[in-house]
Amino acid sequence: MDATQTVPAHGDTLIATVMASVRQRITSRSLTPGMRLPSIRALATSMGISKSTVVEAYERLAAEGVIRSRPGSGFYVAAPMAPLSLSEIGPRLDREVDPLWISRQSLDAGDTMLKPGCGWLPASWMPHEALRRGLRSLSRAADATLADYGTPLGLRPLRELLARRMGGHNIAAGPEQIMLTESGTQAIDLICRYMLDAGDTVLVDDPCYFNFHALLRAHRARVVSVPYGPDGPDIGQLATVLEEHRPRLYLTNSGIHNPTGASLSPVTAHRLLKLAEQHDLIIVEDDIFADFELTPAPRLAAFDGLERVIAIGSFSKTLSASLRCGYIAAKPEWIEGLVDLRIATSFGGSHFAEALVQAVLTDGGYRKHLEGLRTRLARAMAETAVRLEETGIVPWLMPQAGMFLWCRLPAGADAGKVARHALSEGIVLAPGNAFSLSQTAHGFMRFNVAQSGDARIYRMLKAALSG
Amino acid sequence: MDATQTVPAHGDTLIATVMASVRQRITSRSLTPGMRLPSIRALATSMGISKSTVVEAYERLAAEGVIRSRPGSGFYVAAPMAPLSLSEIGPRLDREVDPLWISRQSLDAGDTMLKPGCGWLPASWMPHEALRRGLRSLSRAADATLADYGTPLGLRPLRELLARRMGGHNIAAGPEQIMLTESGTQAIDLICRYMLDAGDTVLVDDPCYFNFHALLRAHRARVVSVPYGPDGPDIGQLATVLEEHRPRLYLTNSGIHNPTGASLSPVTAHRLLKLAEQHDLIIVEDDIFADFELTPAPRLAAFDGLERVIAIGSFSKTLSASLRCGYIAAKPEWIEGLVDLRIATSFGGSHFAEALVQAVLTDGGYRKHLEGLRTRLARAMAETAVRLEETGIVPWLMPQAGMFLWCRLPAGADAGKVARHALSEGIVLAPGNAFSLSQTAHGFMRFNVAQSGDARIYRMLKAALSG
Repeated sequence: MDATQTVPAHGDTLIATVMASVRQRITSRSLTPGMRLPSIRALATSMGISKSTVVEAYERLAAEGVIRSRPGSGFYVAAPMAPLSLSEIGPRLDREVDPLWISRQSLDAGDTMLKPGCGWLPASWMPHEALRRGLRSLSRAADATLADYGTPLGLRPLRELLARRMGGHNIAAGPEQIMLTESGTQAIDLICRYMLDAGDTVLVDDPCYFNFHALLRAHRARVVSVPYGPDGPDIGQLATVLEEHRPRLYLTNSGIHNPTGASLSPVTAHRLLKLAEQHDLIIVEDDIFADFELTPAPRLAAFDGLERVIAIGSFSKTLSASLRCGYIAAKPEWIEGLVDLRIATSFGGSHFAEALVQAVLTDGGYRKHLEGLRTRLARAMAETAVRLEETGIVPWLMPQAGMFLWCRLPAGADAGKVARHALSEGIVLAPGNAFSLSQTAHGFMRFNVAQSGDARIYRMLKAALSG
Repeated sequence: MDATQTVPAHGDTLIATVMASVRQRITSRSLTPGMRLPSIRALATSMGISKSTVVEAYERLAAEGVIRSRPGSGFYVAAPMAPLSLSEIGPRLDREVDPLWISRQSLDAGDTMLKPGCGWLPASWMPHEALRRGLRSLSRAADATLADYGTPLGLRPLRELLARRMGGHNIAAGPEQIMLTESGTQAIDLICRYMLDAGDTVLVDDPCYFNFHALLRAHRARVVSVPYGPDGPDIGQLATVLEEHRPRLYLTNSGIHNPTGASLSPVTAHRLLKLAEQHDLIIVEDDIFADFELTPAPRLAAFDGLERVIAIGSFSKTLSASLRCGYIAAKPEWIEGLVDLRIATSFGGSHFAEALVQAVLTDGGYRKHLEGLRTRLARAMAETAVRLEETGIVPWLMPQAGMFLWCRLPAGADAGKVARHALSEGIVLAPGNAFSLSQTAHGFMRFNVAQSGDARIYRMLKAALSG
């Protein structure tokens, strides 16, 4: 016996005995993953020991990851999968770069906060006059529009309109191939639920929209990434990742990429699709920035003919985020399964939101609003780039359109630290690593040019970067 | 060698060889559950056989359940869990009693169909004047209401109002303990995602709201049930089920039970909660029929103080199903986790729908509307009961309020058959077994009294029951 070993106190021996007994029962499979352990009271009684000894043993086993506690329930044998507390799944991120934290900060931020890190336009930039007209006309709509559930696929005239819009991007999708959803996020969520088994691998871009990470954690998916360059994903690395990890799904934006503002080139699109076919990869193409584009970029869904590409979108960026309405266009057999899943998990859609989106999209003022919006964004982008450069922050790429500038901080600066400092001054930023699976974007930051007009942002940045 | 054994043709031998080789690789764990099998082309090449031989071998293994095919992807080793095609999970039900099928029929039914089987009021019974007023007032609301995402918990004034409403049922829930959702169904879905691991067991009433079955299939939960009587669940059987199956969650309605119209008695509520405490059972109390009640039934959430009971509700039954808005009231640490999960899977809520619900709930006309609605429902219930009895269909119980009559068909009649016949005449019914996990309700049918005024329904029933 090692002379330096501490002789355990009596309490510690008892605790060790309880721990050994639990471990033995797990090894012998009399307790299997997911099974509840005996209650503290029951075990204490049966072993003739105090409850506090059992509590301590269980807590030590939980700290080791052998068992885990569940709120209001007790202790369970740790399963291969963790319970769905998002903050416990995956690598524990610093609050500053935790996708969920940034979303919550942005959504919760009152009017006094500045939000250059958020992912949407200020309310004053949205087509409120068309929305107000839409509401007034809805107030005279049929009772059914006001009170009934939507149909399983959603309002037909809106699906017809979407089919025509997609036709404009050379995507051939009939209205029967389009299902309306309650948001773009819900669209992706439904597709993941439909397509993924637990443990399946999903491919994302690095960097990518940060909520993809939170969403995929909720699905307990394995996530792998491919670097995203000015023309789209790095095709060489994509081939390697597909070979090594066999992902089932690839989540990407192709119109205007979030956060980089890059656009997929036709040659990259073509190569990407060839690889996807070779590796039976299904692609979810999130097209929520389509209405910002000046010159439409190629769409994977157009090249592929909705064979293995699923196109999704929503209206939260250009029409209203308050009105929840998105869509999925996919091959008919997938739409069929998705409709079942949607009824099971959210029942009917919002007839109401669908009718209002339809009203605004067909309102003569909406097209004019979009034209004005594109001009306004282009001006804000140019101005923001100049003002950022004065603080030493340089765009990685000047996007052809959209609201995001993906920027490199001066050498040595850490975006997480800058974000923390900013928050203390009432400014929500979006530091690079929130977008990066590989956590290699600590020197980057995404700016929303429509939310970056206030001089306090640049004063804060100067101070943080010089400090 | 058995002389009766058929000597396999050459093709069959090759197929058997491929099958044996796949089985061997699964047994040896070189292929594990969820892994993709080699592509048909690759395996054919490597074994020097034709692709059609591999196809046949894979298809036979799939028929045996050893492997399974996935749309657009290939063949996979069958996992303990099936892929999320709802129609493939669980016992294959006849279309007539498949919960999803009834929902889809009801949601899809045009104005020419009669829907005594559906779960909502006709649009003309809803408070459309209050909704129209609400829309007109929203058309003058601030830009943020029209265009911004909702906050993570949802519109505070609406949460305050809900807190007061719950206070009226003796449920003490502060606005910080209430999260708005996009529907009652989404509320349950989020709770299941938060609370359940795959394979966890969930308890439901038999009979219960049929979409619970579809929802729980989507979660791949094991489902067990307890018979529901005139005073609530059968407490004796509940104790046995808890002991044997250790369910994690219990999904129930307690205001007015769907489909039976029964109300929980205080003594059953008390016993149920004691058992729940003993077995660490979490209860989800779905209270969407609260506004129909004349005399409030006891609420589990009131007795329990939101310790292990989670209260959920929505406005789709009394206000509008077109406006998607529901809520969850639970203990603060659960709300915290649910907010994260909701942002990850549907991002912001509908500021818009929340503001409109708030406007209608505080509209002076809404209370008057509800009073009129209760009277109208009581009259329709009495009339429907009389008309049904003329066809030999008898209510199992006369509910104190609400829109449902759970009825027994004449001896020997099969509700599934009657429903099939009805559909051929353009009438959507809700046969008992759609609500019954044990499939013991083939002699029952749920009628929505607000949708049962048309004489054609009774003519059809008479014909179907005499035929």
